[in-house]
Amino acid sequence: MELAMIGLGRMGANMAQRLVQGGHVVSGYDPGEAAREAAAANGIAPKSSLAELVASLPAPRVLWMMVPAGAIVDDTLAQLLPLLAPGDVVIDGGNSMYKDTQRRAAMMASHQLGYVDCGTSGGIWGLAEGYSLMVGGEAALVQRLRPLFETLAPAADKGWGHVGPVGAGHFTKMVHNGIEYGMMQAYAEGFSILQHKQEFALDLPQVADIWRDGSVVRSWLLDRTTDALKDNPTLEGIAPYVEDSGEGRWTVAEAIELDVPAPVITLSLMERLRSRDKDSFADKLLAAMRNAFGGHRITRQ
Amino acid sequence: MELAMIGLGRMGANMAQRLVQGGHVVSGYDPGEAAREAAAANGIAPKSSLAELVASLPAPRVLWMMVPAGAIVDDTLAQLLPLLAPGDVVIDGGNSMYKDTQRRAAMMASHQLGYVDCGTSGGIWGLAEGYSLMVGGEAALVQRLRPLFETLAPAADKGWGHVGPVGAGHFTKMVHNGIEYGMMQAYAEGFSILQHKQEFALDLPQVADIWRDGSVVRSWLLDRTTDALKDNPTLEGIAPYVEDSGEGRWTVAEAIELDVPAPVITLSLMERLRSRDKDSFADKLLAAMRNAFGGHRITRQ
Amino acid sequence: MELAMIGLGRMGANMAQRLVQGGHVVSGYDPGEAAREAAAANGIAPKSSLAELVASLPAPRVLWMMVPAGAIVDDTLAQLLPLLAPGDVVIDGGNSMYKDTQRRAAMMASHQLGYVDCGTSGGIWGLAEGYSLMVGGEAALVQRLRPLFETLAPAADKGWGHVGPVGAGHFTKMVHNGIEYGMMQAYAEGFSILQHKQEFALDLPQVADIWRDGSVVRSWLLDRTTDALKDNPTLEGIAPYVEDSGEGRWTVAEAIELDVPAPVITLSLMERLRSRDKDSFADKLLAAMRNAFGGHRITRQ
Amino acid sequence: MELAMIGLGRMGANMAQRLVQGGHVVSGYDPGEAAREAAAANGIAPKSSLAELVASLPAPRVLWMMVPAGAIVDDTLAQLLPLLAPGDVVIDGGNSMYKDTQRRAAMMASHQLGYVDCGTSGGIWGLAEGYSLMVGGEAALVQRLRPLFETLAPAADKGWGHVGPVGAGHFTKMVHNGIEYGMMQAYAEGFSILQHKQEFALDLPQVADIWRDGSVVRSWLLDRTTDALKDNPTLEGIAPYVEDSGEGRWTVAEAIELDVPAPVITLSLMERLRSRDKDSFADKLLAAMRNAFGGHRITRQ
Repeated sequence: MELAMIGLGRMGANMAQRLVQGGHVVSGYDPGEAAREAAAANGIAPKSSLAELVASLPAPRVLWMMVPAGAIVDDTLAQLLPLLAPGDVVIDGGNSMYKDTQRRAAMMASHQLGYVDCGTSGGIWGLAEGYSLMVGGEAALVQRLRPLFETLAPAADKGWGHVGPVGAGHFTKMVHNGIEYGMMQAYAEGFSILQHKQEFALDLPQVADIWRDGSVVRSWLLDRTTDALKDNPTLEGIAPYVEDSGEGRWTVAEAIELDVPAPVITLSLMERLRSRDKDSFADKLLAAMRNAFGGHRITRQ
Repeated sequence: MELAMIGLGRMGANMAQRLVQGGHVVSGYDPGEAAREAAAANGIAPKSSLAELVASLPAPRVLWMMVPAGAIVDDTLAQLLPLLAPGDVVIDGGNSMYKDTQRRAAMMASHQLGYVDCGTSGGIWGLAEGYSLMVGGEAALVQRLRPLFETLAPAADKGWGHVGPVGAGHFTKMVHNGIEYGMMQAYAEGFSILQHKQEFALDLPQVADIWRDGSVVRSWLLDRTTDALKDNPTLEGIAPYVEDSGEGRWTVAEAIELDVPAPVITLSLMERLRSRDKDSFADKLLAAMRNAFGGHRITRQ
Repeated sequence: MELAMIGLGRMGANMAQRLVQGGHVVSGYDPGEAAREAAAANGIAPKSSLAELVASLPAPRVLWMMVPAGAIVDDTLAQLLPLLAPGDVVIDGGNSMYKDTQRRAAMMASHQLGYVDCGTSGGIWGLAEGYSLMVGGEAALVQRLRPLFETLAPAADKGWGHVGPVGAGHFTKMVHNGIEYGMMQAYAEGFSILQHKQEFALDLPQVADIWRDGSVVRSWLLDRTTDALKDNPTLEGIAPYVEDSGEGRWTVAEAIELDVPAPVITLSLMERLRSRDKDSFADKLLAAMRNAFGGHRITRQ
Repeated sequence: MELAMIGLGRMGANMAQRLVQGGHVVSGYDPGEAAREAAAANGIAPKSSLAELVASLPAPRVLWMMVPAGAIVDDTLAQLLPLLAPGDVVIDGGNSMYKDTQRRAAMMASHQLGYVDCGTSGGIWGLAEGYSLMVGGEAALVQRLRPLFETLAPAADKGWGHVGPVGAGHFTKMVHNGIEYGMMQAYAEGFSILQHKQEFALDLPQVADIWRDGSVVRSWLLDRTTDALKDNPTLEGIAPYVEDSGEGRWTVAEAIELDVPAPVITLSLMERLRSRDKDSFADKLLAAMRNAFGGHRITRQ
């Protein structure tokens, strides 16, 4: 198929490249010149503006957005709107909040424009291994875009699916990331216990490696954890500072909205907040309270 | 009554003093000379050894131990054993693990010695306000010691009770402390949220004070929290470092042993561990994992 | 002062009554006739419509809303708007979300109408004991309403305060309730551990009572817990089903928005969701997973 | 090699069979006749007593125990002790507590008997896929047993390793299971959120299947979860009742003992306790407390 990729960052550039490798004709736009040049080197036809990008596509057009979730998606759609024609379709492959996606799809539909959401998992490994794609939208649109999904996925019939109406893709991806937070935290706690058991002087990369074959906890995340531990067994120089990027928060909010207890996913998010709270007011107050009622010594800083 | 206080630290000295004020005749022993001298100034007859202490008491003797939980209790009992006579009774008013108490009571009983456990709450405020006392042991022994409990408690008929067989007092006090951990953590988190809401520039000591009268969250711990916040509204100079002292851990272990979920008490303990884990291996590994699978930037240290 | 109470439910009726007892002239409106009649019996002049209520008040008018949070507040304000005149002030004493309060205050201000939020704690005990009031709004307005706060609070100078701009009162009350969730959960877990320790056959009402005097965990909530346990020591006939009413959820959302870890408050909310999830899909899936990988037996239902 | 398998339950029988398939000569003992007969059908020479089993082995003997953790291990060793000769070695491949293992190894060493612990993961799939083996013990002993590990593991050089001194194998396996609890809970919560989102009518087996290829959360546990969901998409007839088997509890206890926060692993255990607490006293007390302070309605049962 012929399509345009909007956003040639880490994810967009890799996905465009995988599409090119799969025989698709891909043009691309990114505000950064370096990103456009890098894409060009990988067979993606760079365009210097959205207008140019849209103009270069045959109708009905297919445009795939890989831009950061939030206002940039709305801005991009606002810029695209006057450039597109009825029948064109835009795919949001980023980590948008599913309610935003539903709102945007309704707006697009009012202009006879198609809108499909594609929750995309796989990180920087997706280029080589293929991406897991959770697709939401109208069946006819999803069918039209099928060749793209078949190329981006690990195999034509594996790792992707049409999961429901528009928004369902991003919803599913959101929960996927919530699970990811919980799994990561479980591994992190486990390896931390192993690391603190000085009596056994365990070799963490070795343990991780042993678990990769045959164990109940084997996983792709464990493979990556093994890489990380082999690369830097003591994690020297790495700050205990963990970012989060929205989808964990939304999963927690959604769980509460649905009255579904999700304590482990929630706590995994809280642990990330905690990692960044280096001068915890709560902990200071606890220390002050212990002193106030029990005379317990306060550690000074 | 006439009795001996073994251990004249913060808790023991105050309790001995409250007993003296209540008309009891109290002698005391502590390995520290300064502690003995301070006690003497408060009307407690200091003795320079356990032998001297025991020898000075009329039979049947009453000895109240206020020493740190653990081996020191066993050591003290081992030293007392050859000095005591059948019918004497020892009260453990400290924070001993209730299973240790049961073991010690059995040992004492085999020598015709009485053993009573008294979970004691009230901190440094107990001297003035009275202590809450959870007493375990044989009914006849508890009855014999009743005048002491009536003096130590806030009132003769308030704040103390015979809760069950030996061990039950320490068990009840252990759970009391588990609850205390949870309450403290709830306040600490709440004030931390208030403190971070810069938009409202809330005056935390004022808010705490407002809550002290009429609110659902009013409590003695809130009174102490108000003191702490008035004394140091920004908690300047206080390290976010929170100790724990055993009873929270035992409460968690007991909950699990009884198959009783106690997530909030447990998490309150975990938060204290977390406050002391300044270079968290788990957080470092999470950061390394995010980098390994998603190419997310690592913060360096 | 003269004022109108809008909403004569459990909270509104009690507060109106306390204001009457404090010498204020109070008229009241409630859509329910029974509520109006009950209020009349307590010295509140009942009005059969908002129009009649507003018409009966001297300008500048003071109206206190005690209605359920959410759309009813907006509806009430929409009905009041054409009836009010510049200089009138409406107080929202309910559990509104503080962002709604900020939005409503801006709307009211655009009509030269004052808007004050008053977070109100105290439950059904407030009538007798006074309420804890967290007031947000412009200083001049709060000053004008001062006699009301002084009457509603436990004492003229206790249990109430002007904590910040409009919204700050509801924000502070929201966090108050978050803390309340955590404290309640801590007590509930603790008593559950005590209840499961059959070996000691503890008398829970007795233990609660002992803790009420002198202990570190004494509190007004513990007093109420003692009442509940004395009334029904085995909690016979009470379903393990716990409602929540919005403020806990908002506290969690706010904590996450502010990047403040609040694990215990959050988990306390989750436990309430859990209490209502009687056929947990998560638990079923865990059982199914254990069977699928380990052949572990599934309990059938 | 020639060896004996003690315990021919689900795990022992499968492992013995895999050893036979790998060319080893395996005799076996189990108190159950049916288990012995089933083993015989798979090429394992059944023995009707431990004495017969030991007598049939060439010296120095190799005996692999796969019996339930706890007293049965001690009993088995007590029965073996008079039957063995210096130089014989016993492997504990079960889920023993590592401190028990250390104690037992010391006891065995005092009789010149070797003792090796082998944490074994893989469940009922290990027969076909191989087991992940975490081995603790003296290097020379581990080296002697190497052919067994190479056969049981998925490949001679994969999925097994000598991780440290005796006890280290069981310790590592214990933490492995703690991680497993956290991962399972994360998946269970995520799928529960998906299941409750009725708006999207998601097909859970489809979503699980999509995630198996290319996603960040792909794992062996997800493969098994997919099986379970395909087999029974609504989990009909499965009670929300989740057992635990010791290792999660020990992981929590160990984390606390090491001062390592492990909130997600801990909470995963608590959720299992919660799944079995169908008439929660804590929840009843929360409902009673809400009624006592706020007049909130109690749901009756």
